[in-house]
Amino acid sequence: MSTEKLNKKKTIDLRKKHIGPSCKIFFSHDPIKIIQAKGQYMYDETGQRYLDCINNVAHVGHCHPDVVKAGAQQMEQLNTNTRFLHDNLVLYAQKLQATLPDKLSVCYFVNSGSEANDLALRLARQYSGHKDIITLENAYHGHISSLIDISPYKFHQLSDAELNPFVHVAPSPDVYRGKYRADHFDPATAYADEVKDIIEKVHKKGGKIAAFIAESLQSCGGQVIPPAGYFQHVAEHVHKAGGLFIADEVQVGFGRVGTNFWAFQLQGEDFVPDIVTMGKPIGNGHPMSCVVTTKEVAEAFMSSGMEYFNTFGGNPVSCAIGLAVLDVIVKEDLQGNALRVGQHLTDLLEKQKEKHPLIGDIRGCGLFVGVELVRDRLTLTPATAEAQEVIYKLKEQHILLSADGPHRNVLKFKPPLCFTTEDAELVVEKIDLILTELEEALKLHDAPNVENESSKRKLPTDENGHQYGLIHSRGSSQGVSQQTTQNKRLKT
Amino acid sequence: MSTEKLNKKKTIDLRKKHIGPSCKIFFSHDPIKIIQAKGQYMYDETGQRYLDCINNVAHVGHCHPDVVKAGAQQMEQLNTNTRFLHDNLVLYAQKLQATLPDKLSVCYFVNSGSEANDLALRLARQYSGHKDIITLENAYHGHISSLIDISPYKFHQLSDAELNPFVHVAPSPDVYRGKYRADHFDPATAYADEVKDIIEKVHKKGGKIAAFIAESLQSCGGQVIPPAGYFQHVAEHVHKAGGLFIADEVQVGFGRVGTNFWAFQLQGEDFVPDIVTMGKPIGNGHPMSCVVTTKEVAEAFMSSGMEYFNTFGGNPVSCAIGLAVLDVIVKEDLQGNALRVGQHLTDLLEKQKEKHPLIGDIRGCGLFVGVELVRDRLTLTPATAEAQEVIYKLKEQHILLSADGPHRNVLKFKPPLCFTTEDAELVVEKIDLILTELEEALKLHDAPNVENESSKRKLPTDENGHQYGLIHSRGSSQGVSQQTTQNKRLKT
Repeated sequence: MSTEKLNKKKTIDLRKKHIGPSCKIFFSHDPIKIIQAKGQYMYDETGQRYLDCINNVAHVGHCHPDVVKAGAQQMEQLNTNTRFLHDNLVLYAQKLQATLPDKLSVCYFVNSGSEANDLALRLARQYSGHKDIITLENAYHGHISSLIDISPYKFHQLSDAELNPFVHVAPSPDVYRGKYRADHFDPATAYADEVKDIIEKVHKKGGKIAAFIAESLQSCGGQVIPPAGYFQHVAEHVHKAGGLFIADEVQVGFGRVGTNFWAFQLQGEDFVPDIVTMGKPIGNGHPMSCVVTTKEVAEAFMSSGMEYFNTFGGNPVSCAIGLAVLDVIVKEDLQGNALRVGQHLTDLLEKQKEKHPLIGDIRGCGLFVGVELVRDRLTLTPATAEAQEVIYKLKEQHILLSADGPHRNVLKFKPPLCFTTEDAELVVEKIDLILTELEEALKLHDAPNVENESSKRKLPTDENGHQYGLIHSRGSSQGVSQQTTQNKRLKT
Repeated sequence: MSTEKLNKKKTIDLRKKHIGPSCKIFFSHDPIKIIQAKGQYMYDETGQRYLDCINNVAHVGHCHPDVVKAGAQQMEQLNTNTRFLHDNLVLYAQKLQATLPDKLSVCYFVNSGSEANDLALRLARQYSGHKDIITLENAYHGHISSLIDISPYKFHQLSDAELNPFVHVAPSPDVYRGKYRADHFDPATAYADEVKDIIEKVHKKGGKIAAFIAESLQSCGGQVIPPAGYFQHVAEHVHKAGGLFIADEVQVGFGRVGTNFWAFQLQGEDFVPDIVTMGKPIGNGHPMSCVVTTKEVAEAFMSSGMEYFNTFGGNPVSCAIGLAVLDVIVKEDLQGNALRVGQHLTDLLEKQKEKHPLIGDIRGCGLFVGVELVRDRLTLTPATAEAQEVIYKLKEQHILLSADGPHRNVLKFKPPLCFTTEDAELVVEKIDLILTELEEALKLHDAPNVENESSKRKLPTDENGHQYGLIHSRGSSQGVSQQTTQNKRLKT
């Protein structure tokens, strides 16, 4: 295609020379060069089409014409900072606010989910006058210093991780693999009580809680859906301690969950966070993001005497793009589509669960779905290598899916919201075939007489090209956790 | 004009309702609504044209057609993350690298100058294994938590500022108002020795230096040009301590200084920083930015085991825009224009200095020029209120200029690089008239018999609408400093 300017080898060589080696690439032993995309499809330099099940950033579909047009037209007209009045800024803020509970009325426009979460912490600390932050196990909130501190998903990757003394980690409200499971009589309260216990411990040491921060649904942490009521109970404890509740919607907001526009709303009508942060899908790929909070929090922040200025945040182009994204979501009923197609996908996957012992759990809301692979449904031994094998085999079939979670064994669906029932059927059909083959191989492998044949199979590798053995350990999940968390992981 | 959707009052009302009150606006008592811009001109909703002397972000001119076209075309084609191979990323990295010394060969693309500086600190800390950072008095490095800590320009605005124990502030190498002035026999060495002293003090307390960070030319700090040789001496001391030298080019890079593409190069051919951060002008307003460092630093960063992923950073649209900006700078010889027009502007201003006692100092390189106003050329008492008056009167003449620095008495020129000699002549002519009138009024004010008439003059206010009296204190600059730093300040 005409937009390829270098051959793939040259691209790879230049990348090695000029791009930081910490910036990983998908399928690094045989990376994909994408030169075009449309809707839920991406195209490589040979014109090969890939079905995209992972790019939640391209929320309304890659290169949506309405979004492109809005951006291009505004770029021609004006792009400047918010120290000048502009209608796009206020109209966008008004439209965004209309999707939220009334109380959340004040916006700060910034450039990335990371900038949004950092500002959220500053708002909470200024409002409360406190410093301590409670975050969740396996949480991911961003790549800047202050956020790595509150992201166990990231800081556990460090060989010499040092927990910031103002950061406290509560158990992930994961009812499949966590401390309190689906069979618990009230996991919402039990998990919230863990937060309460942390608050008490912090108080005993003389600390004071500024905020509790959680992704409304954990994504990198393994597509975890907290039990309804959990956020309400946590908010009660945190408010009592003088802190704020920050809902991080960077991965999951803007209608993805289908039933609601915001994922925190899955907890019930009676729950309203004090601060909501947004990111990835907000501009369909354009670098922008937002923090929304209450008037009280905004006024407390102003009382510090420090101006808040963000050079690019809230510029007329970003706002034009943000407005177009909101319009397309409504015009094309993408939230409704997420609900319908997500339900169909989940139904299809549930049927696969009946058939494939490797599938331990199916969980999801709308087009945010996780398939947790396990080697044993009782011990929940993570099927990490198998998950990687699924990802690799799907890539051979030109379907892009990823695996994540602390054990890297959760297949993550978060496609553009224009994903169709046919797309869902195609990917499930392929997964069925791959799992059948895998389970076949595992059985063969267990039988000593075919070991040689089985060992001829190519070892699976993760998206970064690290090899995984198909380890048949039946050890505790803890043991596997230690093994897998030593491998570098991709977050999305 | 057709792009105004709301009347100005409605825009202001919605802004009050939905935008954080910490986000300030220029000339808040009578703000400007800009709806279009082209080259070095901005246009309000009535079609009134403003000459823009302040928007260094619109580096190659507002809405440059080549930049708009590059962005629009790539937006139509593909916008995704750097986990897929793309030619724009590597071609842009290669082209950007070519503007820098060979040693600076590895890029990390991010979304803002703030993200860039935060990453620079992480790189330095990981490489050195140390924690302490040395920053300069009046420095501004960004709006996120880790950067407010190293930005005296920001943290001095806080009523309850607490210096981070790992941050150490060295004197600003300001040869006009600083500790060592133009009459010192070797201010470069003297200022560098101050850094050396800090390093020794840190070592005595058991600390270790990770980095020295400085804007290559301080902008918010008052358009300060450090004496040549200062960076070399500092780098020597910092390297000896195992730390790195970070040059922050966010405000001043990309040819603005005229003689060189990067402002750190003003220090001499023999100076190469270990890390360079970029921002504002890099994408002519598009939210993007970059950190460039050495192979050694990049490899040390990778050895932490933590992936670096930035959702939007380095996407094909940002890179297409970045490439177009570099092309336009060359095609239109904007660096040469900055040199020529900047020299003309400085010459014109020097002539004004001979005429106007209020002008204490003219300093600049290319189209980065500062005019420091003082009430007395011996005591250097800052003419803060007068600087604000100049800004306001210029606005009435439809010229946008700002005043900054610790005393808010430095008129800051940093226009789009397409600024012309005619533009320079126009603004200097207007400043001449305003200063003449101001000096006239000051003399009248000193004479008791005309006090009543003089007091009829409208009190000047800063761009935020705070009123300043034309205080005739001849006190120490320290006294005025305390007075003015209590006012909220705009950074640019």
